[in-house]
This record gives sequence, structure tokens and C-alpha cells, in this order.
Amino acid sequence: MQHGTVKDLTRRATFELFTPVTVRFCDTDKLGHVNNVSIASYIEAGRCDLYYKLMQQAQTDARIDFVLARAAIDFRREIFYPGTVEVGSRFIKLGNRSITTGYGVFVGDACVATAECVNVFFDMETRTSIAPSGMLRTLIEAAIAN
Amino acid sequence: MQHGTVKDLTRRATFELFTPVTVRFCDTDKLGHVNNVSIASYIEAGRCDLYYKLMQQAQTDARIDFVLARAAIDFRREIFYPGTVEVGSRFIKLGNRSITTGYGVFVGDACVATAECVNVFFDMETRTSIAPSGMLRTLIEAAIAN
Amino acid sequence: MQHGTVKDLTRRATFELFTPVTVRFCDTDKLGHVNNVSIASYIEAGRCDLYYKLMQQAQTDARIDFVLARAAIDFRREIFYPGTVEVGSRFIKLGNRSITTGYGVFVGDACVATAECVNVFFDMETRTSIAPSGMLRTLIEAAIAN
Amino acid sequence: MQHGTVKDLTRRATFELFTPVTVRFCDTDKLGHVNNVSIASYIEAGRCDLYYKLMQQAQTDARIDFVLARAAIDFRREIFYPGTVEVGSRFIKLGNRSITTGYGVFVGDACVATAECVNVFFDMETRTSIAPSGMLRTLIEAAIAN
Repeated sequence: MQHGTVKDLTRRATFELFTPVTVRFCDTDKLGHVNNVSIASYIEAGRCDLYYKLMQQAQTDARIDFVLARAAIDFRREIFYPGTVEVGSRFIKLGNRSITTGYGVFVGDACVATAECVNVFFDMETRTSIAPSGMLRTLIEAAIAN
Repeated sequence: MQHGTVKDLTRRATFELFTPVTVRFCDTDKLGHVNNVSIASYIEAGRCDLYYKLMQQAQTDARIDFVLARAAIDFRREIFYPGTVEVGSRFIKLGNRSITTGYGVFVGDACVATAECVNVFFDMETRTSIAPSGMLRTLIEAAIAN
Repeated sequence: MQHGTVKDLTRRATFELFTPVTVRFCDTDKLGHVNNVSIASYIEAGRCDLYYKLMQQAQTDARIDFVLARAAIDFRREIFYPGTVEVGSRFIKLGNRSITTGYGVFVGDACVATAECVNVFFDMETRTSIAPSGMLRTLIEAAIAN
Repeated sequence: MQHGTVKDLTRRATFELFTPVTVRFCDTDKLGHVNNVSIASYIEAGRCDLYYKLMQQAQTDARIDFVLARAAIDFRREIFYPGTVEVGSRFIKLGNRSITTGYGVFVGDACVATAECVNVFFDMETRTSIAPSGMLRTLIEAAIAN
């Protein structure tokens, strides 16, 4: 896939990393389905998994953090209790000091939600945004191109 | 303000309706601040208040619902426990079968987050999207123009 | 095991039913570990699973519900993100109109929390507490004796 | 009131400290009322407020923490969205290394839930349970006797 190609987040094939999240009874609301706030927590579960695995690969001990700046979620179908969703997560765009990630939430093969998030690279010592190291940049670019 | 004018969601003056939400200890996460998922719940508190007051005004007994289709949140500053945030909510765009709302989350005068949401008008009896009644449309258009 | 024997909720062997629950990042709080409120949601996941499987076994179409009257949780060890906990659930005492259940939350073999809950049998049509049917009573007594 | 008198947690008069908590839409579950897990978060809001005010009074800079060891909640009535609950909180028993607190959750004058919690005094530097300082003990005993 070429760099810059728009990713179809509604397809399982777009993702390599899937994070299972078990649906809890208290995720439901009085409308009978899973509440949108809980779906935001499912996407966070995927996002944290994605960044955790990136940092493992990078084996960097730099005190870098990824501060969430924006989360945009499209709710496509209702989700019901009980069950387990799978959150597909991937990198989709790398800026100078920020990074965009994409998500698809699946129940079986059905896509129930998609999302795009923007995180800012942040140096926890200097408490300012920074450009990522060459190593991190290389890993992320490879993941985007995939 | 003209119809179609872009609203600055970071300013308190943009809003007439404010919904207080008390921050809970469990809203925090291991980074020490309020977690993004909890901020999504604050915005939902504002959104539900906005639609509840609209339906009171409309005095409609129609079985209309507003299904959340999209929520996009910009996280602007950290929020800390304890405290109370105020969520400003307003209508910003009316489509044929959908409606866009805007939100500003404030701690005192500081805007800590903004959001835009899209809801679809939904007939709970026929289980399909619908165009809103003239009464609802008139009320929403007046609120947007304000 | 004799009827009335006190169950040791800290041991995996006490339970036949285990419900996996994936820990979410937003389950943590500013103290760095999983917040007690999230642990209450893990136990609810086990409790709902236990009652769901009971009703499947009973194949009753009666409009019976199990209203939660009391939940007492003992927090024994810290839980950390990421990971999956397993919630062991079982019936431990049957009253005339109420039922007591016991729970053990495990990370591997380590018991991190235990709980006892009391639910009241409730007729959803008459909106009053009721005594369970003979079938339900027999199933629950068998499970307690086990 | 004598030391050791049992406190009636269902009465507003039992409490001096009340913590308001705004009910959120996502606190509801598919049964239509506020979910028990959310009620646990209301009680936590009261508990944190109680300990925060104690530490302010004590003006101690000791690195003491109050680790939650047990929470037992009695659910007495349903709670509905929207609204604000008030959580009454007080100290009820002081042990050598632990402390018991009591809670009443009110909607207007109606008590919808009560709870008792046990916290253990914990030294954050040595990571062990400790006996509280004389100052803390005196303040807590005075609050219990009240």
C-alpha cells in the first residue's frame, strides 16, 4: 500500500493489530445498547496497545509520551451486551510533532465504529511537545506504509 | 450572529446553556489527570441536557430520538480532580435528517476541551431516520441563528 | 462439600464459572492502579454471567429479575493495567426471597479481590419481590451444594 | 452522641459533610436506572472529600495514605437520570491501623443507598500499614463522637 493511501477503517484487512475488549453490563445505557462513552474506552484500549507495542519495538528509554489532542469517533452500528469487541488499530499519518492513528471496532466481521485520533509527541522532562527521534519516525513510517 | 457563522467553541460567550458536571476521583487515570473517556462523558451530559430542553420547548409527543452518529473532541488542557466543569452546549448546523451541535468544556473561564457531535433524527416506531417536524426545525434554526 | 460450608473465595478451586474481563487504561486512577469502582464493574461482569447462565439452564420464561440489594467488596491486592482478570462467581446462600453470591477476582492464581452480593427475586410484572419457582430453587441449591 | 452509638446512615441528620455529584446519562444501564457501579463512584466522591478535608484540618505533611480495603454498599432505591445526588460522609469507627467510614446517598430527603468502607492507614514511603499520628487520631475521634 502506498504512503498516503486513504485507509478504509471499516475493513478488518486494514489492521494487523487487534485488541480484544470484553463488554461489561455497565457499558450499557437506558437505551439498551452500549453507551458511546464506553465505545470511547474501547478505542482507548486499542490506542494504548498500539503505542505500547511501538515503544517495545523502539526499545527507547527516552521519556517520551503521546498526549491525546483529538479523538473523532463515528458510531456505525449498535453494540450489545454481552460479548467481546475487537479493536483494530494502526498508524495513518505522521506529522512533525504529531501523529494520527486509525481504529475500527469489530463484532465478528461487522464494523460497529471507526475513529481517528491525533496524539502529540511530548517530552515528559521538559514538558513540551517535541519531534520524535529518528528511530521512532522510521518505525512509524514503516507501519504507515504497510 | 448570521446563520452559518463559525462559532468559537472556546469562548463562554458562544453558549447560553451550561451544564455543571462534578469531577469524580475515578475520572482520573494513572497519568494523574482526568482521562479522555471521562471528558466524553462530560460532553454527553451537556448534549443530553441540550436535547432534553429542546424537547421540552417543542412539547412534541412524537417518538423522535436523536441517534449519535459522530463525536469529535479536541482536548485542549488537562483537567484535575477535584472540581466542577461547566459544559456549554449549542446547536450549530441543521441538515435534512441530521444536526450538528457544539460544546465547550470550561473550568472557570479556561476552555479545557471543545467538541462537535452529529446526531441523526430517528423515528423510534419505524426505526428509520426521518426529517424533523416543522416545529422542531423552527426551534433549532432559531437557536443556531442566536 | 456440605450445604452451608463457608466458601473460601480467595481460592480458584471454589469456582466453576470464570468470566474474563479485559482491564482498560481508563480503569486506572491517579494512584497508578485500577480504581475500586472499576473492580466493582469486574464483579458485576461475573454476576451477570452467573445469572445469565442460571436463566439459560432454568429455561424459564417467567419475567423474573434479580435486583441487586447489596454488594460488599474486599480489595486484597492492587491490579495494574494492562492485563485480563478472571472473575470466579458462584451461589453461596439461598433465602426465601433473596440469594447471596460470592466472587473471587484473579490475576493468574493471585486473588486480588473478593465480594459477596445479595440479590432479591423480583417479579417485573407485579413490581414486587417474590419467592423463586421450584425449578430455580432446585438449580440454585444444587449449585450451592457443589 | 456517645462514642460507639450506631449511626443511622439513612438519615440526613447523621451527616455534616455532603458532597454533590451530578448524575450522568452514561451512569444509566439497560434496566433504565443508574447502574450500581456508578453508585460506587458516587460514594467514592464522598469518601475522597471526607479524607481531603481531614488532611486539610490535620495540616500534616506526612506521606500518609488511606488505602481502601473494603466497601459494602446497600442499594435501597433506584436512582434516575437526570439529577444530582448528595453523598453524606462521616467517620464511624477508628481501629489501630484502620478506619471505618459511613455514607448515605440522598435524592432530596430520600435515602437511595448507604455504605460502609474500611481504609487502612498506609505510609507511602515505607509501603506498609501504620498507626495514625496522635493529631489525626484526635481529629477522627472528635468527628466520630460528634
